[in-house]
Amino acid sequence: MVLAPPTDPNHPNDHALIEHNDDPTHPAFLIPELCRGFYTLGWVTGTGGGISIRKDEHVYLAPSGVQKEKIQPQDIFVLTLKERDFLRWPVHKPLKQSACTPLFYNAYDMRGAGACIHTHSQHAVMATLLWPGSEFRISHQEMIKGMRHGGMGSAMSYLDTLVIPIIENTPDEEDLREGLEEAMRKYPDAPAVLVRRHGTYSWGPDAERAKGQAECLDYLLEIGVKMKLAGMETVGLQQ
Amino acid sequence: MVLAPPTDPNHPNDHALIEHNDDPTHPAFLIPELCRGFYTLGWVTGTGGGISIRKDEHVYLAPSGVQKEKIQPQDIFVLTLKERDFLRWPVHKPLKQSACTPLFYNAYDMRGAGACIHTHSQHAVMATLLWPGSEFRISHQEMIKGMRHGGMGSAMSYLDTLVIPIIENTPDEEDLREGLEEAMRKYPDAPAVLVRRHGTYSWGPDAERAKGQAECLDYLLEIGVKMKLAGMETVGLQQ
Amino acid sequence: MVLAPPTDPNHPNDHALIEHNDDPTHPAFLIPELCRGFYTLGWVTGTGGGISIRKDEHVYLAPSGVQKEKIQPQDIFVLTLKERDFLRWPVHKPLKQSACTPLFYNAYDMRGAGACIHTHSQHAVMATLLWPGSEFRISHQEMIKGMRHGGMGSAMSYLDTLVIPIIENTPDEEDLREGLEEAMRKYPDAPAVLVRRHGTYSWGPDAERAKGQAECLDYLLEIGVKMKLAGMETVGLQQ
Amino acid sequence: MVLAPPTDPNHPNDHALIEHNDDPTHPAFLIPELCRGFYTLGWVTGTGGGISIRKDEHVYLAPSGVQKEKIQPQDIFVLTLKERDFLRWPVHKPLKQSACTPLFYNAYDMRGAGACIHTHSQHAVMATLLWPGSEFRISHQEMIKGMRHGGMGSAMSYLDTLVIPIIENTPDEEDLREGLEEAMRKYPDAPAVLVRRHGTYSWGPDAERAKGQAECLDYLLEIGVKMKLAGMETVGLQQ
Repeated sequence: MVLAPPTDPNHPNDHALIEHNDDPTHPAFLIPELCRGFYTLGWVTGTGGGISIRKDEHVYLAPSGVQKEKIQPQDIFVLTLKERDFLRWPVHKPLKQSACTPLFYNAYDMRGAGACIHTHSQHAVMATLLWPGSEFRISHQEMIKGMRHGGMGSAMSYLDTLVIPIIENTPDEEDLREGLEEAMRKYPDAPAVLVRRHGTYSWGPDAERAKGQAECLDYLLEIGVKMKLAGMETVGLQQ
Repeated sequence: MVLAPPTDPNHPNDHALIEHNDDPTHPAFLIPELCRGFYTLGWVTGTGGGISIRKDEHVYLAPSGVQKEKIQPQDIFVLTLKERDFLRWPVHKPLKQSACTPLFYNAYDMRGAGACIHTHSQHAVMATLLWPGSEFRISHQEMIKGMRHGGMGSAMSYLDTLVIPIIENTPDEEDLREGLEEAMRKYPDAPAVLVRRHGTYSWGPDAERAKGQAECLDYLLEIGVKMKLAGMETVGLQQ
Repeated sequence: MVLAPPTDPNHPNDHALIEHNDDPTHPAFLIPELCRGFYTLGWVTGTGGGISIRKDEHVYLAPSGVQKEKIQPQDIFVLTLKERDFLRWPVHKPLKQSACTPLFYNAYDMRGAGACIHTHSQHAVMATLLWPGSEFRISHQEMIKGMRHGGMGSAMSYLDTLVIPIIENTPDEEDLREGLEEAMRKYPDAPAVLVRRHGTYSWGPDAERAKGQAECLDYLLEIGVKMKLAGMETVGLQQ
Repeated sequence: MVLAPPTDPNHPNDHALIEHNDDPTHPAFLIPELCRGFYTLGWVTGTGGGISIRKDEHVYLAPSGVQKEKIQPQDIFVLTLKERDFLRWPVHKPLKQSACTPLFYNAYDMRGAGACIHTHSQHAVMATLLWPGSEFRISHQEMIKGMRHGGMGSAMSYLDTLVIPIIENTPDEEDLREGLEEAMRKYPDAPAVLVRRHGTYSWGPDAERAKGQAECLDYLLEIGVKMKLAGMETVGLQQ
């Protein structure tokens, strides 16, 4: 499970994967752009949170512990999907790949996701405190239609109840991998997992649809928290 | 009621309606610009919500299920007002016109509106939960003066009570058409309709005045929700 | 009290007061820039609110009923301070000077202000609902030091209690003039006046200091509302 | 303790420290950029709050009582770390160095900090009202991991309880120096100090890490206030 770029200075480091490219939809450009947007939404302040994008057999990762709203394409890591070999890593300054890397791979391996988003949204943290059990549930909200079954399948219906498992936080982010995997296995229909007192993991078939679902999820967590604080039930139609 | 662009590749598709134009007040430019602003306001996150603008006998529509803050002029559909014939549709990528199209036409047909806005504002959703009946009512707020009678007539007065009908949501957005039509018929003076657990529909004589009224409406929903949660009445002057 | 630009087409209209000028601190540039900032703060949505700046014997005014975040220098009116004669008015489209004009003149005539700001801030509206009497009072807040005695004098101290009179709203904005004048006379030390269910009027020696005080005022209204809703007193040190 | 730039017009004023420099990571550029970001976050509205950066033996300071979001490199003061001598000060307009200067030096002298941030965050003010004693405490939040022991040491753990001392406000900002010093001495592990009814002081090894910690602190104050208002304890795991 230990991931680290090769230390042998002669090991090939394929900078062309990032730098000889000016396609604005390329992961190396999308990750910085999306992180700037997530910062504005309050999802990745204080260097927290992040996003990973898969393009075919390559996985693109942001660095760990940096200002997410300031990431540049040259800061991005590229790994292979299967062997998790490093194909490209930053050398212009000392950077480590995101501590969430094993968690992002869960979405790639278990769901075949094309992108995975991790936020420290306060709505998520409040939801995990107001729903002390192992699930956040909400129904009868138009925005549920923006979520996909399992994050990857067909769109959910207004008549579906959205069920998001909640796992307990661990001191080390890497140690969340097992709990996350278990929750994803137990809830194959869930498009996201909440980590108590921490935030969200969600994914989608590609970066655009992962972002769209992350926005819908955050909206539903926010409205759920508001409803709960106003004394309303979030499942069913009766108030 | 089924609307779809012609599938015959020889059918004329008048791209000039969009592309040979650099007037910043043209609907093809206004729709993207307004959607970016609405995204910042939290009205159209997660691909939800939207806007349609009418210019004379042409109706301009945003595509369905896309990131609203990223729409480009070339993504816009153009239909005729009367026959709902497609005059122009995007071919650079597969796009479907907004699922709200029949709802937007309600505002054009029943009110002669020049633009119609649909939001997923959380203030609207909370208002429809805190006002469980069929109307949201508020009076004695300066911002009521920013609303027009029926959305199209003269400005409302500080002494008017704003009454916005609330209709129930349906699993399919198209199925809201009938309920929306009934509410607009029953409340000819109302400048908007709320959809429970979903959002707002509002309109105006043109895009600028539709936007101004949508902002006033959202302000009034927000302040109404705050007042209700603080235990105040929103109609009348006594607290 | 009726103010309107001359209708005689031969009456001189001194466009040079606005257009032959590229000083970014000139009122014709400051008003649009400040209005864009106020829009972001939620103070002037839905065409509400505004700002007027005085430069020596000239008073600069934004137009009425327009999107405040879209104002351009050429939309600005210029009047004389004493006679309220129109020196410059827009002719490129039909625009009317702000309905707040007589209220802005109160600040110029009674306080010798250099700028006057009117907002529809929701914090102000909530404060006037939670303080049903004729005064909003708050003490022991660092931000009080950002307010000036009477809006124009020396800075207030952390030990001062900020007292802002509240007047009742009227159906027509012009009719607020008398109540505003009375409140400003009765509270010579107050740097602002609140209008119930409407918003704020505040002023300062120049645009920069008027803006700074408007920000401090809004901060204090917001924190006052939060304290009141949490069951705290806003005057004195005991909770 | 009285600090003021030399009044002798022949005293050397080393403008080159600011002006012959286009490195975007230089303090003279970072201070304006960071202040713009802090303004958007609501930390420095109404000319309040600020930031100081140390680069080796030079201390860079923003001016006092100006719009923080408008600061330009040429407005910056430069002092020596040890003697607090002025090496560079603005002459293009009358400006005074930040009233927080002695407080910023506390972080340099007592912690060896590389940057110090002062905010008027409303979350901080609310926290000091809801925690009427001399400490704000929170545990079991992922964002605690973004704070460093004493602001300068190793990262805190998810299992650590964050303890931030709260000192009482004083009418003059300079008079906070002693209380701040005492709190920093008594709480060597604390990465920040709160000032009741006023705001935050926090610091870090450099500007980037001071900003990251200030964001984590503000997040934790915000979530702490939300938890307290919802009737939850912020320390321990039971709700």
